[in-house]
Amino acid sequence: MQTPWEYRYAHRTQKMGSSVIRELLKLTEQPDIISFAGGLPAPEVFPVKEFQEACNAVLREHGAQALQYSTTEGYKPLREMIARHTARYSVEVTADNILITSGSQQALDFIGRLFINRGDYVVVESPTYLGALQAWNAYGAQYISVRADENGMIVDELEAALRVGPKFIYILPNFQNPSGSTLSLERRMKLVELADKYGVPIIEDDPYGQLRYDGEHIPSVVSLDSEFRGPNGGHYSGNVIYLSTFSKLLAPGLRLAWVAAPPEVIRKLVMAKQAADLHTSSFNQYVAYEVAKGGFLDEHVKVIRATYKERRDIMLEMMDEMFPPEVRWTRPKGGMFLWGILPEFMDAAEVLKVAIERKVAFVPGTAFHPNGGGANTMRLNFSYSKPEAIREGITRMGTTLKELLQKNGDGMK
Amino acid sequence: MQTPWEYRYAHRTQKMGSSVIRELLKLTEQPDIISFAGGLPAPEVFPVKEFQEACNAVLREHGAQALQYSTTEGYKPLREMIARHTARYSVEVTADNILITSGSQQALDFIGRLFINRGDYVVVESPTYLGALQAWNAYGAQYISVRADENGMIVDELEAALRVGPKFIYILPNFQNPSGSTLSLERRMKLVELADKYGVPIIEDDPYGQLRYDGEHIPSVVSLDSEFRGPNGGHYSGNVIYLSTFSKLLAPGLRLAWVAAPPEVIRKLVMAKQAADLHTSSFNQYVAYEVAKGGFLDEHVKVIRATYKERRDIMLEMMDEMFPPEVRWTRPKGGMFLWGILPEFMDAAEVLKVAIERKVAFVPGTAFHPNGGGANTMRLNFSYSKPEAIREGITRMGTTLKELLQKNGDGMK
Repeated sequence: MQTPWEYRYAHRTQKMGSSVIRELLKLTEQPDIISFAGGLPAPEVFPVKEFQEACNAVLREHGAQALQYSTTEGYKPLREMIARHTARYSVEVTADNILITSGSQQALDFIGRLFINRGDYVVVESPTYLGALQAWNAYGAQYISVRADENGMIVDELEAALRVGPKFIYILPNFQNPSGSTLSLERRMKLVELADKYGVPIIEDDPYGQLRYDGEHIPSVVSLDSEFRGPNGGHYSGNVIYLSTFSKLLAPGLRLAWVAAPPEVIRKLVMAKQAADLHTSSFNQYVAYEVAKGGFLDEHVKVIRATYKERRDIMLEMMDEMFPPEVRWTRPKGGMFLWGILPEFMDAAEVLKVAIERKVAFVPGTAFHPNGGGANTMRLNFSYSKPEAIREGITRMGTTLKELLQKNGDGMK
Repeated sequence: MQTPWEYRYAHRTQKMGSSVIRELLKLTEQPDIISFAGGLPAPEVFPVKEFQEACNAVLREHGAQALQYSTTEGYKPLREMIARHTARYSVEVTADNILITSGSQQALDFIGRLFINRGDYVVVESPTYLGALQAWNAYGAQYISVRADENGMIVDELEAALRVGPKFIYILPNFQNPSGSTLSLERRMKLVELADKYGVPIIEDDPYGQLRYDGEHIPSVVSLDSEFRGPNGGHYSGNVIYLSTFSKLLAPGLRLAWVAAPPEVIRKLVMAKQAADLHTSSFNQYVAYEVAKGGFLDEHVKVIRATYKERRDIMLEMMDEMFPPEVRWTRPKGGMFLWGILPEFMDAAEVLKVAIERKVAFVPGTAFHPNGGGANTMRLNFSYSKPEAIREGITRMGTTLKELLQKNGDGMK
């Protein structure tokens, strides 16, 4: 007889859904669509030559180790390099504070696995990163949304949320995905204090921290937490779990990211990773280390910044020119995304349907709001498309929006 | 104040433990230990030159795609190649039956995620693969152990277990890890029939199927299930979820494996993977496809077989010569492991302590028994150590075992 699979799945599986973003990524594979939907880096900035040299060097010098099983924590020289980099730019850590993961999505999954019992609350910004919601939905999380503005989470509204007793606070402080907002220094300090007051850990997700195009770098939440606590004797043991990634600086196809956290949390994360996939590709860790060890990333990030700054500027200029005055949007100081806000009565998902006919795509904002709302919002990526495509795509979107507003106006007569 | 992390973890985290095998792997890093403990392929058989050529070709011809984000299902040409290979040697499938995972450990994790509610029962062989237990413990599985002998699970004892109402049956039919046993054809057919009778799916884990050194290939459980059900119209939609991997044929450092399953199960697995790590490294998928596409693996597996057959034979010869008559062991027809059985009164963990002083290591069998027992058993790996090291290591073990038996005999006088 046929196996009735649907009745055999666990409770968590019944709630699984495919991501709007991932489904839309399929559209970006049609060559005639201009897609602002995905969150892809520009392939033009991938350091292909450096990868080629690194692959050859790794296979020549470390073939037997790089192709073999490895330790769950990650390749030690890579962890030490990340620790040195973190100590220089953010907070004093050692390799014992670092775990290598297969992309930051895996770190989000492990954090859910470590902390979330079914029904536990997690504090998020509204809107927040969809991938985090997907990861934690699998563990039965519920969400308390705290409103955000152009300076990130409105921390004055956080205290009420903390009194609910959430498992942790999730925050993407730099050039947030999806909104592009950056948490101000004052709010970061308040966040650290409030989290300490209520004993609630902070998950700081920072994929874009180095992709700043204007203004001054703001200290990371983990470094402010460390200062708040005072000298830590060389390795970090505070209240923040910090995530970052090579996906935006080197290449997402490697699936290489890391967690910096107190050693006792790292030890639990290592156990979670052991059960989940043993370890991240040793070969990719060797190759990333080989590419990065001589300081290459410091130079390479300048190329990425210049490329994305130009694309952001072109997108903003074109929106100023082509979008109807009823539509508003953020002007992010870095990262890969900006956030559009349509008039309340418009539904971005309906706009997308028309936009796709015109061969341009974006992500409607609903999915970034775990507790509903945001139907009139949308996320636009500016890192992936080339300048000409951005000009053409924003022109098409402008035309679409004007027509839909016109039609709506007619309907209301 | 200090964050009291231990009180913040979820229920599942309290039960997490580090694997004995993974902890022992750390010992193998000491160059003076001869380790039969890990489950490592021989680095001498890694096709380093072919990897070098493949990396260069991929970066030259597909750099932009291979370094970019990709679809969760996996690189289509690789999935199609696996589907063709599976259709030729096992069961008719299409790319819609295939998901690429980051090693088989990840597939085991996803299967737990898809099916296991806390307290659900899973039927396993006794002993069974430790990595599967680690993966499923995280979801709160309980286990029904069915005894096994040199022909694998004693299927006559399976029916009683199925009447408990387990979520699935887990079986490693070829050269099992840890015991080295192979499930006979007759038992495979009975397994398929019983699973169908009770409507319980089968997870067939087959990392070593191609590593046979003696005797005839036995059809896979998934192919027998397909025959049992009759014509399937080109893609498999039966009762088995089949796992295999490139770790033993190519290199484990890539973390590349696959699941073959009914398309509706693949779709759920894709959603699980999306939330867990978005996708497996695109670069590694391109490289593995590039290495394998011209039929390289068919030739390469002959080299692996010859290497491991020699090592198995040397280990067995040396055991015949050096081990005391009170110790028994299996004579596996393939794979990477054999299984030792000490007299009932001996504890393999105690033997290990003495063996490590003598600079030789193995894995005590207790951890492979989810419901206790097996304290007098041990797993020995024969694929990793070179012939000279096998001779020396087995000599050291033989001496250790004889001394301990002698001492024990003295104690009993």
